[in-house]
Amino acid sequence: MRAGPSQEEIRRHNLGALLRHVHLGGPTSRAELTSRMGLNRSTIMALTADLTAAGLVREELPRETGRAGRPSLVVRPESARVYVFALDVGVDRLVAARVGLGGVVLDRRETVRRRGPFVMEEVVGPLAAFARQMHRKTRPDTVCVGAAAAFSGGVAREDGVVRFGPNMDGAEDVPFGEEMARRLGLGLPVTVGNDANLGAMAEHTRGVGVGCRDLIYLHGDVGVGGGVIVNGTLLGGHQGFGGEVGHMIVNPKGRSCGCGSLGCLEAEVGERALLEAAGRFENHSAQPYNGSGALIGRDAVRAVVDAADRGDIVAQAALGRVGDWLGLGVANLVNIFNPEMVVFGGTLREVYLGSAAQVRSRITTDALPPVREHLRLRTSALGDDATLIGAAELAFAQVLADPLEVLARAGS
Amino acid sequence: MRAGPSQEEIRRHNLGALLRHVHLGGPTSRAELTSRMGLNRSTIMALTADLTAAGLVREELPRETGRAGRPSLVVRPESARVYVFALDVGVDRLVAARVGLGGVVLDRRETVRRRGPFVMEEVVGPLAAFARQMHRKTRPDTVCVGAAAAFSGGVAREDGVVRFGPNMDGAEDVPFGEEMARRLGLGLPVTVGNDANLGAMAEHTRGVGVGCRDLIYLHGDVGVGGGVIVNGTLLGGHQGFGGEVGHMIVNPKGRSCGCGSLGCLEAEVGERALLEAAGRFENHSAQPYNGSGALIGRDAVRAVVDAADRGDIVAQAALGRVGDWLGLGVANLVNIFNPEMVVFGGTLREVYLGSAAQVRSRITTDALPPVREHLRLRTSALGDDATLIGAAELAFAQVLADPLEVLARAGS
Repeated sequence: MRAGPSQEEIRRHNLGALLRHVHLGGPTSRAELTSRMGLNRSTIMALTADLTAAGLVREELPRETGRAGRPSLVVRPESARVYVFALDVGVDRLVAARVGLGGVVLDRRETVRRRGPFVMEEVVGPLAAFARQMHRKTRPDTVCVGAAAAFSGGVAREDGVVRFGPNMDGAEDVPFGEEMARRLGLGLPVTVGNDANLGAMAEHTRGVGVGCRDLIYLHGDVGVGGGVIVNGTLLGGHQGFGGEVGHMIVNPKGRSCGCGSLGCLEAEVGERALLEAAGRFENHSAQPYNGSGALIGRDAVRAVVDAADRGDIVAQAALGRVGDWLGLGVANLVNIFNPEMVVFGGTLREVYLGSAAQVRSRITTDALPPVREHLRLRTSALGDDATLIGAAELAFAQVLADPLEVLARAGS
Repeated sequence: MRAGPSQEEIRRHNLGALLRHVHLGGPTSRAELTSRMGLNRSTIMALTADLTAAGLVREELPRETGRAGRPSLVVRPESARVYVFALDVGVDRLVAARVGLGGVVLDRRETVRRRGPFVMEEVVGPLAAFARQMHRKTRPDTVCVGAAAAFSGGVAREDGVVRFGPNMDGAEDVPFGEEMARRLGLGLPVTVGNDANLGAMAEHTRGVGVGCRDLIYLHGDVGVGGGVIVNGTLLGGHQGFGGEVGHMIVNPKGRSCGCGSLGCLEAEVGERALLEAAGRFENHSAQPYNGSGALIGRDAVRAVVDAADRGDIVAQAALGRVGDWLGLGVANLVNIFNPEMVVFGGTLREVYLGSAAQVRSRITTDALPPVREHLRLRTSALGDDATLIGAAELAFAQVLADPLEVLARAGS
């Protein structure tokens, strides 16, 4: 603290803070903003005027409040006008969306990704095509203020390069963001984050974990990813790879994992572990199809949970086995992090719902009592799009940090 | 950011920041403080004058610098005058120390604690007696500005109560700090922290981890404790129990642990695991003696490492086994946290040195390559007193946050 910040710095900070309030909280009355932000009415009015002039928010009369007196104007984010591109690169799907300020998914395209080695063009090509299609449909007065991607792999903080992807051969030292930005051709960088980390951010800012400062998000896709919120902030670690809880070894003589180790959480509770235990796994490395056929992929995982639900004892036993390892993994993480909440997302949402008894029983046995006492286990509120929504939040980060500056650049 | 902080808030902040500089960095010239703190010379002079008047620092001419021109005065902490009481409650030892500003251990007493159930009087009594003895020896112009204790157990942030101690039966819901403060009778609260957490803080602020923002400290005593620094801050978690990495299960069909689970890291690499593997364990639950007899305790652990070093193949095999599990545990933590450094402290210092090949080999096998690439493995710089020094830092926290206020209260 050298000296106080300048008036201009305070104004920029407050503009971002106000925009963040309506971005995350939705339409909010000036009176509420005044009380929530601890600023006086005239300051709120001035900030709102600036953001309105920039086209980031608009003010409207509220619906009938039922109260007497002059109603406070409601500040709304300009969701239809100000948007970002959010991308999601999963092992077996690619998603692109146009997401408006306020977190509204305005447009969304999805396609299957063939499992197997990472080939840049096969990922960047379809995503860029989706973005072009969606861009073509926008009205002339709209403005794109950012782009970001969730990637199923480890992303270095330093340069945004994908350094490893245990379920995508060849996704090593891949400058995916740079190439994606070039192909989008919007003059915008594409920030890249680990998919589960972004899922954690999404659930923390606008999902089941709102208001929760210590949270673990577990994301089931083909493998198992994790994102950890520590005291309100995403755990990044020294290089940005923090949260790779899927490669915590829980069963040292267990199943082999894509990372080369034995008995990682991912190897014991991932897609293949469940399908094999349920007698439903076939080696599809030669057969590219997935998804709709329900032989592999999230539909296949969900089919096992459904079968167990209908009384299929093989499916029940498979879920029981997987739930036991999942519970052990969660117990470990609970002892290590003392979180307030653990969120099960992606396919782990259904796996958890189908094996909650085993998961809870393991936690009771293996987590220290005072540490598990207040623990809440929850399923993702954002579903399969948690990672995509997280990418959108990453893309919005800059405009929320300095709204007028970013908008001036985007508009020019 | 409602508005800028007041002049008075800035002054208090800067007083604390300057005091922290000389507390952690030792005697520092005014010129160096000016450049490090980014403040101008007259501000540094005014702050130093205030701290000098309060008796927290003094200014001296430096030793011959060899340079021409008027030398810059050196600001030194008043280590002999301003001190805290630091306490350390281990499973089999009790330590009390008087630690001067700047981290100088001015006086130190230690006694053996009989293993077995926690009995408040048997812990509080000897520590209070030590404090009285040390207090009696102080000069009249000295001032005690805080007291804190490291405790081998889980401490709730909310109320400072010890909630669990897997290696100390009955250390459950124990208001140790409150009772300790009453017995010290200094009119000061006794802040309590988990011993390994405080060890992590100590290594981070004045040990091997200085300058390192993401660090894991593993503390071997009877059990295994942990403290994790995430982006420069101690991981506390929702209730303050964060970092209990000793109760991460690494071997689900493994040895039984004091916490009730099987195969916790503590059960596989703790004192008893090593002594049993080395054929040196006898059940001493009926025999209270420990420490000097080298049958149990840190001396016994070190005797195994020494024996292995001299070529004892049984001791070597025992260390190899324990090192393998230690390496697996560290690999897990490396994947989860992506730390810059892992520090082995307490008895794990020697265990690591005696089994570094196994530890490193496991990390190479089980940690994701980009995550382990830049990892540094180090041994504690503060040795067996890391936890005690951490308690001292906890005790100094308040005077560093608001020097003049705390000193005024202490002097009154």
